[in-house]
Amino acid sequence: MGQGHNKMLIREMIKMEPGVIRCKATVLWKPGAPLAIEEIEVAPPKAKEVRIKMVATGVCGTDIKHLDTQELSKFCPMIMGHEGVGIVESVGEGVSSVRTGDKVILLCIPQCGECKTCLNSKNNICTEIRLSKTHLASEGTSRITCKGKLVHQYIALGSFSEYTVLKEISVAKIDEGAPLEKVCIIGCGFATGYGAAINSAKVTPGSTCAVFGLGGVGLSVIIGCKAAGAARIIAVDINKDRFAKAKTVGATDCVDPRDFEKPIEEVLSDMIDGGVDFCFEVTGNTEAVGAALGSCHKDHGVCVTVGALASFTSTLSIRSHLFFSGRILKGSILGGWKTKEEIPKLVSDYMAKKFNIDPLITHTLTLSEANEAVQLMKSGQCIRCVLLL
Amino acid sequence: MGQGHNKMLIREMIKMEPGVIRCKATVLWKPGAPLAIEEIEVAPPKAKEVRIKMVATGVCGTDIKHLDTQELSKFCPMIMGHEGVGIVESVGEGVSSVRTGDKVILLCIPQCGECKTCLNSKNNICTEIRLSKTHLASEGTSRITCKGKLVHQYIALGSFSEYTVLKEISVAKIDEGAPLEKVCIIGCGFATGYGAAINSAKVTPGSTCAVFGLGGVGLSVIIGCKAAGAARIIAVDINKDRFAKAKTVGATDCVDPRDFEKPIEEVLSDMIDGGVDFCFEVTGNTEAVGAALGSCHKDHGVCVTVGALASFTSTLSIRSHLFFSGRILKGSILGGWKTKEEIPKLVSDYMAKKFNIDPLITHTLTLSEANEAVQLMKSGQCIRCVLLL
Repeated sequence: MGQGHNKMLIREMIKMEPGVIRCKATVLWKPGAPLAIEEIEVAPPKAKEVRIKMVATGVCGTDIKHLDTQELSKFCPMIMGHEGVGIVESVGEGVSSVRTGDKVILLCIPQCGECKTCLNSKNNICTEIRLSKTHLASEGTSRITCKGKLVHQYIALGSFSEYTVLKEISVAKIDEGAPLEKVCIIGCGFATGYGAAINSAKVTPGSTCAVFGLGGVGLSVIIGCKAAGAARIIAVDINKDRFAKAKTVGATDCVDPRDFEKPIEEVLSDMIDGGVDFCFEVTGNTEAVGAALGSCHKDHGVCVTVGALASFTSTLSIRSHLFFSGRILKGSILGGWKTKEEIPKLVSDYMAKKFNIDPLITHTLTLSEANEAVQLMKSGQCIRCVLLL
Repeated sequence: MGQGHNKMLIREMIKMEPGVIRCKATVLWKPGAPLAIEEIEVAPPKAKEVRIKMVATGVCGTDIKHLDTQELSKFCPMIMGHEGVGIVESVGEGVSSVRTGDKVILLCIPQCGECKTCLNSKNNICTEIRLSKTHLASEGTSRITCKGKLVHQYIALGSFSEYTVLKEISVAKIDEGAPLEKVCIIGCGFATGYGAAINSAKVTPGSTCAVFGLGGVGLSVIIGCKAAGAARIIAVDINKDRFAKAKTVGATDCVDPRDFEKPIEEVLSDMIDGGVDFCFEVTGNTEAVGAALGSCHKDHGVCVTVGALASFTSTLSIRSHLFFSGRILKGSILGGWKTKEEIPKLVSDYMAKKFNIDPLITHTLTLSEANEAVQLMKSGQCIRCVLLL
């Protein structure tokens, strides 16, 4: 789909109307309520902003987890979703990195390119991540309204919408041939898991790995371990229905901790003499962090916690003896990627068949079926559901 | 002092008597009791064992901590102490790495050279560390008796004694010119702290460091940070009496957390924009681990816990958000040194004035004054007390 066609498509969809775009979005009016399909108004982008015709979005576990939490109540009405891709409809003044017709992916952590982290650090937590706490994408406000009310955008993105306006630093141009209904999940779930293996753990060829938790992120960790050349990848979950998929993407062994009387760290230590080289906690359960750390080889094992970080206020209880020799514990957020630079490369790598994300997408629905997608995710029946917008 | 002289000295001290040596030692008859100066019998070394005329020993915080704990009751009578040096009096069959007259340092972790860790690992936890749990240095027994009872040796060493018998893997030959009344403390306290900075954290030139806890180990961490070229070293303790010594060995700033209303991690984050590059917990207080981790730079800070590992059964409670970006938590035992190979090099480095341990030794007493040394350590008045044996 070339740029000329994209522009035609956009002009048609907005019916040549300049200024405000009226379109559909799912709106959360209060925590715990179903998502409502509403007509919204999306104002034109201002300086350093981009208006995007959204095409597809993944439904991520973080969306599901937050939908029902009271902490979102002061940010309602809100458009949920963050794993999105689309086509640039128009750009505000001073935007230089994307232009109308470009295919773009939404960045869950911006990359401003100017803050201390962006300029100097090995890390990816751009100072502008503070935007995500306000759920306001546009300099303390939003370009979106619904029934006369300002609409917040989940973590300053809000992808469950036909159109949106975001800061330029929160979007990155991707390959114009990218299949948007697939690569949307690279923006969060896949990047998070794959990067935890590649960047945070730095999995080495021939190594042994264990992955606790086989959701979309955990399976993406497995894909990362495999891409890094791990010799053995043990998938751990209490949901055996996930094992077949884990093997499809690269797991060499699957273990259900409930099949054993002894703790999982001892089970793994028996399987891999002394414990694995790399272990990943992708469960969201803080208690699993200690088990994952204990499953690492005592002398050099690296444990990367991913899921437990989803709750910013939780506390990890870890027996100090686990640090008695050489184990290391670290966290990983969005896979450590410098987003604007590196997420588009992941899209290209997928297109070059360096890895395959297709098995992660188990369901594809439409925006009007958003509540079904939420139920599918809650039921544990799907890995990733993509909504076509 | 040449080898010929050493041999003469030994022959004189043991009065030319072959076989069993009668000499003095401090004996702990039950936890909490004062150390008793007793006459003991030290049998000749058997295969792969070494009998040593002890010359000096440091009194370490670990000795003090364990003296009163009931967990030692089943190992009494016991000779405490582990930070020792001496001269080889005789060797058993098959001993090849040391010979009579050699100056040797006791190794708190052996290096057998044959186990998986010794052969392959970056770590230093030789499998034979299990000896330390039995407090029996000689293949499940001891060559030492007192009043007809078998005497245990603290962590399979027991340095508060005029003579001892140890496994060859638990001693290392050091430079024959080494001043034994000084270098004894390299065996544990100094090696632990210095190595935490050099090996475990890998402190980099120009970096910023903070050290929580200014005992002998904490001060040795400071010496390590300085040797590694750290630009700023912040010493943290609630005992201001330690600050002058901390500055002597290399601290650039000293902070008492009780002088501030806000948490120490915020104080340090204000002092060093965003937090320090390397932070060390050397307090023995598990709660300090979270504060030390929180004092590290969020993007790349490395926290090394040392003191909290002294209690094998403790639990660390750490807020998960501290791992939200790039912080790493790891432990360090005996500074990560491969002991038999590397501790003698530390002795040589000291003699070559690569660092100075002299300021750490605040008191020097004799074996008969062991209880005074214990009281000095408990009072917090001394950093390291050396006993001449």
